[in-house]
Amino acid sequence: MPPADRPSDDPFPEAQVEALLAPAVHRLAAPTSLSPLPYDLNAGVPDRATLPADALLEAARRALAEDAAAALTYGGQQGYEPLRAWIAGRESRDARDGAAPVTAAHVTLTSGSAHGLDNIAATFVGEGDIVVVGAPTYPGAIRTFRARGATIVESPQDDDGLVPSALARVLDTRRMTGRQAKLLYVQSNYDNPSGATLPLQRREAIVRIAREHGVPIVEDDAYTGIDLAGPPLPSLFSIAGGRGVMHCGTFSKTVATGLRVGWIAAQPEIVRRLVFMRFDNGSSPFLHRLVHQFVTSKAYEPHVARLREVYRERRDASAEALREFCEPYVTFRTPAGGFFHWLHLHVGLDGRAVAQAAAEHGVAVTPGAGYYASGGGEDRVRLVFSALPPEDLREAIRRLGQALEDVARQIE
Amino acid sequence: MPPADRPSDDPFPEAQVEALLAPAVHRLAAPTSLSPLPYDLNAGVPDRATLPADALLEAARRALAEDAAAALTYGGQQGYEPLRAWIAGRESRDARDGAAPVTAAHVTLTSGSAHGLDNIAATFVGEGDIVVVGAPTYPGAIRTFRARGATIVESPQDDDGLVPSALARVLDTRRMTGRQAKLLYVQSNYDNPSGATLPLQRREAIVRIAREHGVPIVEDDAYTGIDLAGPPLPSLFSIAGGRGVMHCGTFSKTVATGLRVGWIAAQPEIVRRLVFMRFDNGSSPFLHRLVHQFVTSKAYEPHVARLREVYRERRDASAEALREFCEPYVTFRTPAGGFFHWLHLHVGLDGRAVAQAAAEHGVAVTPGAGYYASGGGEDRVRLVFSALPPEDLREAIRRLGQALEDVARQIE
Repeated sequence: MPPADRPSDDPFPEAQVEALLAPAVHRLAAPTSLSPLPYDLNAGVPDRATLPADALLEAARRALAEDAAAALTYGGQQGYEPLRAWIAGRESRDARDGAAPVTAAHVTLTSGSAHGLDNIAATFVGEGDIVVVGAPTYPGAIRTFRARGATIVESPQDDDGLVPSALARVLDTRRMTGRQAKLLYVQSNYDNPSGATLPLQRREAIVRIAREHGVPIVEDDAYTGIDLAGPPLPSLFSIAGGRGVMHCGTFSKTVATGLRVGWIAAQPEIVRRLVFMRFDNGSSPFLHRLVHQFVTSKAYEPHVARLREVYRERRDASAEALREFCEPYVTFRTPAGGFFHWLHLHVGLDGRAVAQAAAEHGVAVTPGAGYYASGGGEDRVRLVFSALPPEDLREAIRRLGQALEDVARQIE
Repeated sequence: MPPADRPSDDPFPEAQVEALLAPAVHRLAAPTSLSPLPYDLNAGVPDRATLPADALLEAARRALAEDAAAALTYGGQQGYEPLRAWIAGRESRDARDGAAPVTAAHVTLTSGSAHGLDNIAATFVGEGDIVVVGAPTYPGAIRTFRARGATIVESPQDDDGLVPSALARVLDTRRMTGRQAKLLYVQSNYDNPSGATLPLQRREAIVRIAREHGVPIVEDDAYTGIDLAGPPLPSLFSIAGGRGVMHCGTFSKTVATGLRVGWIAAQPEIVRRLVFMRFDNGSSPFLHRLVHQFVTSKAYEPHVARLREVYRERRDASAEALREFCEPYVTFRTPAGGFFHWLHLHVGLDGRAVAQAAAEHGVAVTPGAGYYASGGGEDRVRLVFSALPPEDLREAIRRLGQALEDVARQIE
């Protein structure tokens, strides 16, 4: 065999790999990479100090003591039934009068909610299908739907999230062109990146509009649990009586991102198809049982209450620092939960220039343009407040203020 | 909201779900389901008693003690570097003279090797692309490639696996039609379902033929480690000097199916694209670190040696029972590893009829027809010897012998 470091002899050169790739590969943008800077306000990750390591080890011990063989053997594509039943109980909390109860049959477990979106895309999206998303929205969702051939159509958001009247127009237009949307992707709580939360009336309007158009809703609820202004409003899934909505949740933010345990709640006819379109022999039953042990233990509720305290303190400290150090250059609305501030830059300031200047001060923030499927967002920057303690946030935002000054000076 | 149990009012009825499904859903057969029968020789699962539960709990403890925050936070799409480096060491064992060393950059971690196949399909398979597979082959691979739009083309296998001369003809024919194959899927060791192992000369011929046609090889090696007749031969990946082969491995059979930790080893240009086509925010770094702790502990090698003993005993006990109870009706070749006997039924016996009759005797076996993409295999039955202890295998095979008698009597 010729050694691979003699490129001229390479039996399988780079160009050949490139020529063989699926068309989808060429359609996709690279995902945002992490920033090795002293102050990272870029990665939307939980606080590391509040990770419940001891409680999770104890949960692992109990899961293995209870039934090691079941925990360590294939657990089926739909996942561990008691955890699905526990999730169903949570999903039932805001059930409307007369709605059928949510049961374990309404839930399928996924490797985080990101994988849930991929499972939904595999089940519903074919080449050329239209998926409607907010503008802005989560870029991971855009990539996931595009990978399956979707054409992304945007519907505008304001400070309260997706605007129902605009959504109705977008869906009407789609209907008139004869290519109705296949899915509507919505983040109802603490939107990534905008932090917006849909008010109740909008939720009801969105469910009604989607239903009138026969479009199923993908409700991505990755940040629920990190509720910093009281309990969340009823989900679109609850408002719809569980019909025509796929509700994606995760334990990433309330337990740990490193476990990769999430779920989709939907009507059983849909769950059956989602399970059918799994090709990974299911997620880890060991992790399902570990999470189930933890969430049914006495440690869970105090843990989540503690998380809310930690993140509320960080949200408030960062908001205060933004007002103190950045106010001449940015406006923002304090989010009711989640991990993000979505800064509106004052006229003339560009998000990429601000992110570049911030990097020079050792601070990573994310330019807004990456959150729009078809352009826009140049006057926006996303800032993560979840990952750093208040004093580091304050210092990072002080530096961000300097970066804003630098950029403002350049354009004067 | 109308209650969902009044179907006439259902705002999102079954028919609407059906109408919205991606075309791929309609292309796929249902996966084989597990059989709730007293003797299950259907599910290709490891022995439950040999699962190293205590050692894995200890590995979890060490993984969390070492770096709880890293174990419980997103670990990146490619996965935990020290585990990738350990796998690279294994992949290097049979490296040919002059081949570039296999490093952590050549490895990406997946949620089991099944998920590895899905990752490969996402990266290389577009609508209408040709994927060549053995006849018979693993139905999960057929489903996974078809879900991405692949057209499956079969290449015949005999008792030694894929036949090189026939493969060359299949690829030549593809080339002449102007639609060259995109991927060649091969199981080199202890093929599921046939148990076949490719001899060294065939391996070299297959690498050469695939290379001549510019077709990358997907080498599925899920059963390596369960080596019941000495160490395995060099992989296609090693023989190819790491170029043009994606080598899929897993800890499912040597550690536990319930952990869902597998990998793909390939040239770095390919690994980069595989990582790019992940949409699940990576697999669990907690499980990666747990597996790394276990495989680098003193417990690992004795554990795998013990597994080989257990499975060798089961293979031999089941082979003996087959000769004693089923010989008038079946022939088979004892496999060099893995979990399966692949029975050739004597003239006139039909695999589905035999499986049906066996079920009436309380024994689940799998008819061969499901392992062929385009028909055939009616004279075959697959039998799993891994999951039951020798005495249960003997009883199950005694009953299978009775079922064979029943079927033979009916066709006389």
